[in-house]
Parts: sequence; C-alpha cells; structure tokens
Amino acid sequence: MPLGQRAGDKSDSRYCGVEVLDFPAGEELPAVLSHSLSSAFDFLLAPLVDPDYRPSPGAVLPVAASDLVLGPSQWSSHIVGKISEWIDLDSEDEQLRLDSEVTLKQEIAWASHLSLQACVLPPPKRSSCANYARVVNHILQGLTNMHLWLRIPLEKSEPMDEDHDEAKSSSIMSDTVDSWEWWNSFRLLCEHSSQLCVALDVLSTLPSMNSLGRWFGEPVRAAIIQTNAFLTNARGYPCLSKRHQKLLTGFFNHSVQVIISGKSNHNVSQVGVLSGDENHTEDTAVRHALSPYLDYIAYIYQRMDPLPEQERFEINYRDFLQSPLQPLMDNLEAQTYETFEKDTVKYTQYQRAIAKALVDRVSDDEVSTTKTVLMVVGAGRGPLVRASLQAAEETGRKLKVYAVEKNPNAVITLHSLIKLEGWESLVTIISSDMRCWDAPEKADILVSELLGSFGDNELSPECLDGAQRFLKPDGISIPSSYTSFIEPITASKLHNDIKAHKDIAHFETAYVVKLHRVARLAPTQSVFTFDHPNPSPNANNQRYTKLKFEIPADTGSCLVHGFAGYFDAVLYKDVHLGIEPNTATPNMFSWFPIFFPLRKPIHVPLKSPIEVHFWRCCAATKVWYEWAVTAPSPSPIHNSNGRSYWVGL
Amino acid sequence: MPLGQRAGDKSDSRYCGVEVLDFPAGEELPAVLSHSLSSAFDFLLAPLVDPDYRPSPGAVLPVAASDLVLGPSQWSSHIVGKISEWIDLDSEDEQLRLDSEVTLKQEIAWASHLSLQACVLPPPKRSSCANYARVVNHILQGLTNMHLWLRIPLEKSEPMDEDHDEAKSSSIMSDTVDSWEWWNSFRLLCEHSSQLCVALDVLSTLPSMNSLGRWFGEPVRAAIIQTNAFLTNARGYPCLSKRHQKLLTGFFNHSVQVIISGKSNHNVSQVGVLSGDENHTEDTAVRHALSPYLDYIAYIYQRMDPLPEQERFEINYRDFLQSPLQPLMDNLEAQTYETFEKDTVKYTQYQRAIAKALVDRVSDDEVSTTKTVLMVVGAGRGPLVRASLQAAEETGRKLKVYAVEKNPNAVITLHSLIKLEGWESLVTIISSDMRCWDAPEKADILVSELLGSFGDNELSPECLDGAQRFLKPDGISIPSSYTSFIEPITASKLHNDIKAHKDIAHFETAYVVKLHRVARLAPTQSVFTFDHPNPSPNANNQRYTKLKFEIPADTGSCLVHGFAGYFDAVLYKDVHLGIEPNTATPNMFSWFPIFFPLRKPIHVPLKSPIEVHFWRCCAATKVWYEWAVTAPSPSPIHNSNGRSYWVGL
Repeated sequence: MPLGQRAGDKSDSRYCGVEVLDFPAGEELPAVLSHSLSSAFDFLLAPLVDPDYRPSPGAVLPVAASDLVLGPSQWSSHIVGKISEWIDLDSEDEQLRLDSEVTLKQEIAWASHLSLQACVLPPPKRSSCANYARVVNHILQGLTNMHLWLRIPLEKSEPMDEDHDEAKSSSIMSDTVDSWEWWNSFRLLCEHSSQLCVALDVLSTLPSMNSLGRWFGEPVRAAIIQTNAFLTNARGYPCLSKRHQKLLTGFFNHSVQVIISGKSNHNVSQVGVLSGDENHTEDTAVRHALSPYLDYIAYIYQRMDPLPEQERFEINYRDFLQSPLQPLMDNLEAQTYETFEKDTVKYTQYQRAIAKALVDRVSDDEVSTTKTVLMVVGAGRGPLVRASLQAAEETGRKLKVYAVEKNPNAVITLHSLIKLEGWESLVTIISSDMRCWDAPEKADILVSELLGSFGDNELSPECLDGAQRFLKPDGISIPSSYTSFIEPITASKLHNDIKAHKDIAHFETAYVVKLHRVARLAPTQSVFTFDHPNPSPNANNQRYTKLKFEIPADTGSCLVHGFAGYFDAVLYKDVHLGIEPNTATPNMFSWFPIFFPLRKPIHVPLKSPIEVHFWRCCAATKVWYEWAVTAPSPSPIHNSNGRSYWVGL
Repeated sequence: MPLGQRAGDKSDSRYCGVEVLDFPAGEELPAVLSHSLSSAFDFLLAPLVDPDYRPSPGAVLPVAASDLVLGPSQWSSHIVGKISEWIDLDSEDEQLRLDSEVTLKQEIAWASHLSLQACVLPPPKRSSCANYARVVNHILQGLTNMHLWLRIPLEKSEPMDEDHDEAKSSSIMSDTVDSWEWWNSFRLLCEHSSQLCVALDVLSTLPSMNSLGRWFGEPVRAAIIQTNAFLTNARGYPCLSKRHQKLLTGFFNHSVQVIISGKSNHNVSQVGVLSGDENHTEDTAVRHALSPYLDYIAYIYQRMDPLPEQERFEINYRDFLQSPLQPLMDNLEAQTYETFEKDTVKYTQYQRAIAKALVDRVSDDEVSTTKTVLMVVGAGRGPLVRASLQAAEETGRKLKVYAVEKNPNAVITLHSLIKLEGWESLVTIISSDMRCWDAPEKADILVSELLGSFGDNELSPECLDGAQRFLKPDGISIPSSYTSFIEPITASKLHNDIKAHKDIAHFETAYVVKLHRVARLAPTQSVFTFDHPNPSPNANNQRYTKLKFEIPADTGSCLVHGFAGYFDAVLYKDVHLGIEPNTATPNMFSWFPIFFPLRKPIHVPLKSPIEVHFWRCCAATKVWYEWAVTAPSPSPIHNSNGRSYWVGL
C-alpha cells in the first residue's frame, strides 16, 4: 500500500519495503510476505538462499522458497532479493573467494529465474574490492532486466579543521572513511553500468549535508533505514532527527524507495492494536513489529508539500535530454510558439522593461509630441508586439512598432493578429531576416527575445549585431545584456543516457534538460557576457573563459559528469530575466538548463579545485562551443572545430 | 650528409639539423641552406615568417622566402618550420591571444603549402596552456601529412629528500618544475593526436636518468642541443658530459634527430680551416660556425656499437603489434615452424634440461638395463625430438620417444624427419591432441614447449593437465614450472596504433610486440606461476593477482599506457628459459614481449603507487585474461568475460 497520494507524483518513492533479517527457512516466505503486505508494506527485501550454504559439486541450491510458492507477479512486484552477506570476493582466503564467486552467480541466476526486478548486493567488506567488482561486472554483462543494488553504508568521517598541522592532517586523511569512494571505484570498474545502482544504509549518524548531496546525482534506488537511526518522541513513538527528515524528503523527491530494517526498538505496535480489540491476537491482526516505523515514514511522506503545478507539468521532462533549438537554421513549429507564448511571466518582465525604457526615452512633457520607434526583431507570432503596445498604453507613450520576423509561417499568424486586434495603424510587419533587412528609419528601442538556455547559444549576439545598424546611436536594446553561468554537477543518469549512443559526438553536444537527479557541486560562476548595442567597431563574439571551482571541503571527493549551464539577462536597468538558480525569475518555464557533458567523468579528490575552460568560437557559417577541464586532470578538448555540435548562422 | 653509416640502422637519427636563430630576411634562406648543407648539416630549423609581423586586415604574410626560391623537394627534405616564438595563446592580453591565434594558423597554413614535413611549435610560456592546446588541436584536425613538434625544455627540478619535513616539502612541491607535465597536459587536451610530437631542448644541466627515461616512451622526434650544453675538452674542442653522451646515444637508438642550436662558444672552426688554406675565406669554404659541434655529434654517432645481428633482423618488428598465436585452435604454418626451429639457443637449453633429467632418472649403473620413456607433447616438426635424442646420446641413456602432435600437416614432416634420420626404432609418432590421446604406457619424462610470451597464454597449463594422465607418478615434466611477469610502461606509439582502430575491443586485447619506443617505469613483478605435474585433484588454472608498483621518486609523474608482459620457465632444476628482462636467456628470438594496453592511459602522480589486478579466467571453451587498475584511479575492468580477447581451448 503506497505511503500516500501526492498529486502528480507517480514515482517509486511511494512504496516502502521491509528487510527480512532471518532466512525464511521451510518455505515461510509466503507467510512473511502476506503479513508484511497486510501491515501496509509494499515489498520485502528477502534472502533467497540459506546463508549456511557453500557450493559443492552436485549440491542443490537451498533456496528460501520454490518458485511455485509465489505467483510470478508476486515475485517480481513484492520481492527484492538479498544476496548472501557472507560472500567475500576480496578475501585473502582463496577458497572463500572461489566459493563466493560460485554462490553469487548462482543466487543471481536464481533471482533472474524468478524475474525479480532487483537484488541487493552485500556491501564491500573492504575498500579494495576489485575482484568483487569483476564478478559483478561479469554478471552485469549477461543480465537483461534485473538491476543490482550495491548496498553502501552512508558513512563519511569529517575532514579535520584547516587550522590543524598539515602534516598531521595528511596522515589522518588516510584513515578517513567515505563510503562514496567505495561506490565510485566499484562503478568505475564496472564502467558505469546502467544496471548497477545503490541501496544506501541510513544509520543513526549522518555525514554533512554537502556530502549527502552527492548521492542525488547517483543512481540511488533504495534507502535502507535502520530502526536504530530512529529517535523516540515524547509519546514513545519512533521519529527521526530533523536532518534525517530532510534527507528522507530528499529521497522521496528523487524517486528513492525506503526500506525499513532492523529489530524493533519501540514497543508501541502491540499497544496500538491491543487497545482496539483484545481478541485480535492472531493472523493479520498481529501488527508487524516495524509498523510504527512505517507509520512515521508515511507521515513524513504525506506531510510533504504537494508538487507545484509547473513541476507536475514538467515531470516527464526530468532528466530527459533534448537537442537545443536551431532557431536560425530551422523555422519553429506552431506548437513551439504556442508553448512559449504561454509563459506570461516572461512577457510581463518584457512589458516592465519596455515601459521603463519608454518613460526614460520620452519625458511626460513630450508625450503628445513624440512617437517612439520600436522594433521587435524576431517577432514570432506577436507576443512581444503585444507586450510593447501594452507598455505604451500603460505609460501613455505613442509608439510605432515594426515587427520583423524571418519565419514566413509566423508572419501569416502575425498578420491575422494585427487585423484581429485592430493594430493596423500601429504595427508594420516586415517579413525578413533582421540581419539583412533594409530599415526605412532608425529605431529608438530594439526588442528581442533570442535567448537560449545558455544566453548566447541561439546566436542572439550575431542577430543583434546585424540588427543594431538600424538602432539610433543613443537607442536602447532590450535585453541590454546577458550572461551565461555554469556549475559542475554529478549526473550519472545523464551520463549513461549519452553513453548509450556509443559515440563521441553525443558526448560533445550540449543538451537542454530539466535537471533533476543531479548533485550541484559548487556555486555557479559566470562564463560569457554580451552587451547590446555594442559600439566597438572591432567587436567580435568569440569568447574564452577559464574558471576555477572549489568544492566545499565537507562534500568529500566527487565525480563530475559535466556542467549545468544557465543564463541571466538584463532586459533594462533593474528588470532582469533568467534561470540562474540563485536569481531565477519565478514561475517562468520557457527555458530548461543546458548540460555540457564530459566524455569521461572526472574524479575530483578532496580539496582539489576544478579548472574548466569554455570557448565560444565563430566561423562563417556556424558558431560553437568547445570545453575542456585541465584540473584536477586534463580532459580532451571537447567539440574541436565544432565537429559534433554547432549552431548554424 | 648523414652522421655516419651504422649497419642495419636506417632511422632518422642519422640526420642532424641546425637551428637558424635570426630571421633570414630578404630571401637569404637559399644561401643559409646551401652553406649549412655544404657544412654537412642535413636540414634547417628555420623561421618562416618575420617575427615583427602582427596580423592586420589585408596584410600579406611576410614570409622568409617565396615558395619558388627552393624546389619542392628541398622544402620538404631540408626545412623544418619554426613557428614564431612571440606567439602566446594563454596571455592575459586578449589582443595578443587573438593575434597569436591568427598568426599561428597562417604560419602553419604556409608551412603546409610548402609541404614541410614538420613545424616546431614554440614552448608553452606557462604551465596553463589550454588555449594554446585548443588552437593546435583545431589545426591538427585539418592537417594531413605535416607533423607538429611541440618544443619542450628538458627540465625537472629534483624532489626534496624524504627526510625533510612533510609539510615543508608539500609546499615546495608546487614550485617544482617538470616540463614533462606540460607535454602531458598538452597532449591529453589534444587527445593523443598522432601528429603531435615533441622536440626536446637539451640544456646544460640534465634531470635524473629515471626522469629522462620517461621520454623514450613519448613521440620525441628531435633533440635540440644547445651549444652551451657543451663542455670544452683539453684541446679546446666542444664535447659533452658523460650523462649527455648517454642521453644522446639513447636518442640515436630511438630514432630521434639532433638539431644543434645557439651561438658558437668554441672558436675552433676558423682555426681548423684557416690552417689548411688561407685564401679560402669566402663561399662554402667558410666553415659553418657550428661545425665543431656537428663533428662531435657525428663522432658520438659513429662511436656507437653496431646493431647486433638479432636486433637488425628484428628491426622491422619494433613496436609493431601482432595478435598472439592461437596454437590450439589454429594449426601453425610451415613458415612459423621454420622460424621457431632456427632458435638454437632454445633447443640447447631443452637438451641440457633433458640431459640432467635423464641422468637423475637413470643412474650410471642402470644405463644398459633401463630405457626411459620420453614423450614430446606438441612435437611440431621435431626439434624437441632431436634435442631429446641428442641428450640421450650425450648422456648414454637409452630412450624411447613418443612424439605427439595434433597438427596433421606437421605430422607429415615428422614422418619424413624420422625416416631421413633413421630414427624409426627410437621414435613413435602419434597424430593426436595430447588432451585426448590414450597412451599405451606411462612416461618418465614429458617434454613440451607450449609457452607463449606470457608463459601460460598459449594454454600450456590446460594442455599439460590433460597430458599428465600418462606421466608416471614420479615422472618429470620439462618445463617443471613457468611464471609470468609484468611492468608498467609508457608507450604512446602503441597507444596510438591501437586507438586508430576506433573500438574498445582492440584496447582489451593483448599483443605480441617487440617493445622499442617505450619507457619502463618500475621493475617487473611476477603474476602467475604454474607447476607441472600438478598433483592436486582440485587444481584449477584460474588465477587472481593484485600487484603494487612503486615508481622511483626521481622519475616524476608519468603516464602508463599499459603493461609489458614476459615469462620465465624452469625447464629442469637450474636450467631455465625466458624473456623476463633481468634474467632473459641471451640470443633467443622465439618470443617478443606481450603488451596489455589500457583503454585510457593512467596518469600517475609523483609518489603514487600503481595498483593493478590480473585475472586468468577459464570457461568450457576458452581462457582469457581480465585486467584493471585501481590506483591511483580506477580503470574499467578490461575484457570482461573475455568479450574482446580470448584463447580457444
């Protein structure tokens, strides 16, 4: 039974499981399952094979239950297999290693036979786990549907204070535990297999929030919460610390399922039931010993804020890679215009900016005598024309509007709009590319919305450089400037999706994507800025920026799969518009972030800065970015000569 | 004029160039060239463009000489282009950066137009050279034949003593210079382009031999020896220190050309000529100012030992990757037998081992009464049969030989041999796979030669396990054991050759290769050992070994492209056979080393150990290796499940 209903949330995090600690010998499994399901758990994490078993020639695998004791759909929806914990593939004892290899392969084969969705692999017993990884890698090569969840205890010792003697802290460093490192080497050895995921064991103490944040970029499928991670509230019921609650909410928001594990430390379950009807002592009436914990988890789930409407609308776009638009080379489709035009917040910002510019341009005394010439370049189906006219009306300024649009299909709609609204005397429609239009007069104000997720990536600079010929020397461009930003992220899901194409080109392409399962590792930094109008005669739109990101020391080491990109635009004076997370315009949905991947994810050790280079390159027919990391270790230069990804002029 | 004649050596290192320091303005280039050629230099390293030039619209590139002043073959054989040294692509000054980019592209385009074989790029002006690398990378994408040699000064400050305070040394560390690091990040950014090479500037002081050794695995094409790196001998002539001489010999042996550069510090040239004929003061008769240096370089070249005959025979195999044999699945060709049979050293060792075993087996008293049963398993065309019979004759022991061979074509030759030699009464030929032959009696001695470059890689263990059924319980196997060895190496040439296949499979294959342009980074360590006969009933031939290599601290950091593999076999008691460099049997040519590549070369920082894992895996129809590095950073597990490379049973 799901933890609760949450509008728009159809993720797996609604389901809660329970770990079966003892081997359900003698085919007890159906009874255990039925008891758990009737106590509102959704699934079991259950051992599949007698832990006393060691392989020997001709031996039959002593499984917990024949495949016949549960129906096929029960096996696959209600059981996650737990691989025997004695398995130790990196032991010094060769016989134990060989027995472990045989048993692991047998157990996984059995779980596959049962069509289980996933098995939990026991945690590595030591930091050096190459042989374990090799055997799991073998298995992954042959696995079709089942996922393997490597169990990792959520532990990290905190680094020493900076004040401490360097030498001392460096010797202590080697003793620090960071279980993320185990996961990281395991998955590197297994080549980022998309079927290898993580089940985190949540303990009573938690590492720093920054270090926890790393896991949101990793394929965490389950959080196994130990009963002794719970506290006891005033009424004797289990509850979680504030930090545990926050982590739990994070898991729910990232489709991570909870599994409760351990012995009950809170004797409230019997009390709860007995107080109802004293005769109900058998069968389903006996509450599950862990029910109070489940109740608390469900309470946390239900207490979460509902998903905002915009989030619900965008939920299917989460972590879905899209190629950026080529608005210059391709004409947009009606549906695309339709979507963008619905973004009222954006047009409100434009209207505010235009109104301020009109007031600055024409004093109250001149209102009746002066007509402002405003050109909307890239008018599309007219939303900025409307915003301009509304700004004129609001400020009482007279306006003459030219609406310049290169897409002949949009021009048709524009003509209907003018007619419908009766704007014939106010608006002149120009069906032309702004870069080659021969304007009959010069404009006071040039309004455009040619921005991509990374600001300049839809070639706003090149278009506006072409259009500024017909802007008066003291004319205003709205936007007057825009800046791109990046930040390093962990995004294993995106990495695997790109890797599935099996070529380099897809790793040298920037994608528009609603980032969700990512870890943001350091604050954003600005990359390129463009100002309009640009009076410099020798100006060019090539750019080169070198940035250095410092990961907070309490994050620990991390893996960078690429860089998330954003923009912020100054429309006019204090009116801005953007998606840079710290300053993002609320409730605007026209832009998702952009993602620049790295061909090989870069491991960033503790306290090592990341040095990254971004270039914006221009040639006669195209513009493109190149990027490279030079610290902590050099990457290749991505997208050399725009070979894989470029925007056509 | 080449430095000298050296039998068998046809490499570029016979040619010596001279750097032209001043811009040969006014089309002086032909005169400079002709003077240098007549002074026995082979080529010039010459500036192509006036160093005062800065790009401006419409400007014509002020080149040193029109393409017409030299013939096409003169340009390509005698001129290496020197790119302007003022170029600084990582300057803080944007205009200088932009000018540098334009000029660099123009100069390279001009050099391409002249069909030069190579241009020397000026050394990076700072350790951070990402923009320089980006522009060079652009150029490399479009370059067809020409190579670019990045000029790198050969410098490395030595690490502090271990005794020093840790904290102190770590702060000093950041000041240490290691120009190899510049090269390394440059080539990583340029993705190991095979057209990007190195020209080393050899200065008066040299870093440690270990750190110099790294360069022999890199694509060094030229060593530019500065005149002030020379000393002066008792007679006033230039000479080099012992360490410089050793380095120079190393360069000659690795096809590195020498270029002499700098002002003359030794005023002997005029003296030498003037003493002959005082009237010769003009034209070609004026000796080149750097001739004394060239004379010395030629002296060092001519003084080198001639290439041994075996080296000359193998010269065309240097760094040439071959797939290992599949002797079980495929039958060898006559030519292969022919080659191997010529390796007399190998058969002499076998004969010695067999003789010792015969003497141990049959005391002098029993010589006349006891006949030893010896089986040659994998007899091929008979060389081991001959060695066995010679050992019997030498020791006076009676012998009955069974020659077991699975290749029916070799069996034909074997029959002719027996007839030709009159061995019919001594030798029984068995046309069968040793693994399934039903022997009529048991052997005293089992002789085999089934070893590959990595010992067990041609499945000697599996074959001998199959054959030991017909060995007497106290019987002797020759060989009685063999061990494989590996060492980490830098081998950029091999890496690039594998990369050219553009797939993962070639990076997960082991190759037989005569290693030449490689740097051996740490002493070899043993990997797997197999003993024969193997009495254990549960024995299996799977193996797992974890090794840790420490690079000597004075080497500095380095790049590991993979592991060189060798074997050593104990034939009988103290008689061994092998190619492990420290114990290799001299003058044996049957085996080249084996090379296990890494998909992505691993950068090993100073003082970081390399941890590597090797597995030998066995299944019903095949045997294969897997390998992975886990420190300093984890690699993927190579060749999982033998998907790319395996040996068929």
